Amino acid sequence: MVKIEIKHWQKSPEWRILIDYFFSLNLAVDCNAVLKALQPIFQEQGMTETVHNWEDHGYLVTYIKKNGSFANLRIHPHGLVLVDLQSYNDDMKGREEVDQLLNKVEERMKELFHSNIKRVKRLPAILRGGVIDRYWPTADGRLVEYDIDEVVYDEDSPFQNIKILHSKQFGNILILSGDVNLAESDLAYTQAIMGSGKEDYTGKEVLILGGGDGASNIDQMVIDGCKKHMRKTCGDVLDNLKGECYQVLIEDCIPVLKRYAKEGRMFDYVINDLTAVPISTSPEEDSTWEFLRLILDLSMKVLKQDGKYFTQGNCVNLTDALTLYEEQLSRLYCPVEFSKETVCVPSYMELWVFYTIWKKKTDI
Amino acid sequence: MVKIEIKHWQKSPEWRILIDYFFSLNLAVDCNAVLKALQPIFQEQGMTETVHNWEDHGYLVTYIKKNGSFANLRIHPHGLVLVDLQSYNDDMKGREEVDQLLNKVEERMKELFHSNIKRVKRLPAILRGGVIDRYWPTADGRLVEYDIDEVVYDEDSPFQNIKILHSKQFGNILILSGDVNLAESDLAYTQAIMGSGKEDYTGKEVLILGGGDGASNIDQMVIDGCKKHMRKTCGDVLDNLKGECYQVLIEDCIPVLKRYAKEGRMFDYVINDLTAVPISTSPEEDSTWEFLRLILDLSMKVLKQDGKYFTQGNCVNLTDALTLYEEQLSRLYCPVEFSKETVCVPSYMELWVFYTIWKKKTDI
Repeated sequence: MVKIEIKHWQKSPEWRILIDYFFSLNLAVDCNAVLKALQPIFQEQGMTETVHNWEDHGYLVTYIKKNGSFANLRIHPHGLVLVDLQSYNDDMKGREEVDQLLNKVEERMKELFHSNIKRVKRLPAILRGGVIDRYWPTADGRLVEYDIDEVVYDEDSPFQNIKILHSKQFGNILILSGDVNLAESDLAYTQAIMGSGKEDYTGKEVLILGGGDGASNIDQMVIDGCKKHMRKTCGDVLDNLKGECYQVLIEDCIPVLKRYAKEGRMFDYVINDLTAVPISTSPEEDSTWEFLRLILDLSMKVLKQDGKYFTQGNCVNLTDALTLYEEQLSRLYCPVEFSKETVCVPSYMELWVFYTIWKKKTDI
Repeated sequence: MVKIEIKHWQKSPEWRILIDYFFSLNLAVDCNAVLKALQPIFQEQGMTETVHNWEDHGYLVTYIKKNGSFANLRIHPHGLVLVDLQSYNDDMKGREEVDQLLNKVEERMKELFHSNIKRVKRLPAILRGGVIDRYWPTADGRLVEYDIDEVVYDEDSPFQNIKILHSKQFGNILILSGDVNLAESDLAYTQAIMGSGKEDYTGKEVLILGGGDGASNIDQMVIDGCKKHMRKTCGDVLDNLKGECYQVLIEDCIPVLKRYAKEGRMFDYVINDLTAVPISTSPEEDSTWEFLRLILDLSMKVLKQDGKYFTQGNCVNLTDALTLYEEQLSRLYCPVEFSKETVCVPSYMELWVFYTIWKKKTDI
């Protein structure tokens, strides 16, 4: 264990910025000529230079500034020049300096290569180590930055990490162990998992599994967070666990389903909002698939013959996982049929697949 | 001009990957102890080390591998440790090596700091210099990665760069000079700019400005690209510039509007799909605002007293630009009223504001 002096990192206003910048060229380059051309721009900034020459792989030049900032200049002989600049403190002055430096680099490169520059790309700064984390990758693994401006709630329950972060455009977003679950902007999700407005629920018996953002859930802390900070999605339904026409059970749904099945209690609708289809595509190695199938079987046992089962699937790009889920449906105790719908859930930044499953009509 | 040997970059299968990785700690750290702890992990990979010590700003350690890859290890005394690894060729083997290395770093950090690690974040790799560009920042400047898998069309017209890129989930996306304009998934955009299904267009006179993705536009090349590759959005409307009930004019809309105004030709609807509200918030410095107001004035001149003018605004987060746009509306030759609606356009990855504008009823 290293020697430490306790000091709270949250108190530090410092952020890390990484400016990612590259030039694609139509041609191979003389790495040394590029270095000589760009060198002065960094040296003017009072940066000290360290050059590594791979010969056949080109150059890496590191420029270091007294204030703790530094830049990498990577020159590839086959015609790719990369600059990334890491600086300290996200202040405007710092940003302007960075922009000026990069503008000079761009000018100089254009003087050198004119129309041979195929592409110049400057990406938005990536903020690292900030108190507010703006990066929540999609289910299909893409990097997306959210407009998060406030950490509303951040607690660890016995089951998961629970965050509620405020997005300027999406409102409060519930994030469970790093997965974006639901935002106040996501009425489209609720509509989709309730049958896209095609159902008449009056006088119907409905069983909802999961959905701690507004329904029953094993994790009391999700409910505590949501009933306080996600009222646009759950309204006052979580204030009382029992209402005139609903009851919220905070327990494992498996024994409950088994009890209902044993009692012969039947529902018109079962809405499974427990978990997305696992991303893993090897069911034998993944007990989540077992779990999914168990839930499906038990749900079918408590679903009326003409009832409907609604559930979310996964990101539309994860086709293997979706196919595997559909294979599970052919392995239930009773024959079922299904339809699916692809829906745009605003805060997901990817299209999401929802399933409707029903018992296959058998000719008598 | 540097000496060059012509060689087409496109032919090169090599991409650049940057893995961005950081640890936020609850405490200040002994930088040297962190270095000593992580050093062996990089050295095992046969990487050679260069250490820079700022004293009060901590360490930058650069590790260089024979194959052209390298890593930056940035250790901040106040409790932030950053690793970014840049490697060559996006092959699975390379990725596995990178993952193994980062896993070891994470294990070692956890041994060192146990529960004092406040956050560990590993971002998806950023691909740079690839033939396919997956990064198209939002109007409010956030970094978002698209699931682009094919460049369908990429041409420079006299007016702009025109790209049509294929996204796995959104279909073909039209990108004009770097701005995502419309994807095949974006029926929501078309519905919004036509009044969200609340209008009955039968027998009505409609004037559409812009919208080269399916209507009149000054840029023939946009139409050529779209009528071939965006048929899901424009259908066959662009195959013939004149149909039974429509005519497509490929010219500057200002003189056309002036001519219509002079002729006294009036429309039930004017749909302006020319350009988004400029992001600049200083109208006096920005002729685009002049242009916008000119279009608005001319449009009002050809709009029937009970007609409606539909247009897109901007990203909902750019509140200053939207406010300024609304101020322009109070400066037209005739008094107008407006309403606005925020819509989720799937391929935008941000919520978008649309306006309905009409002539103010004046009591006689």
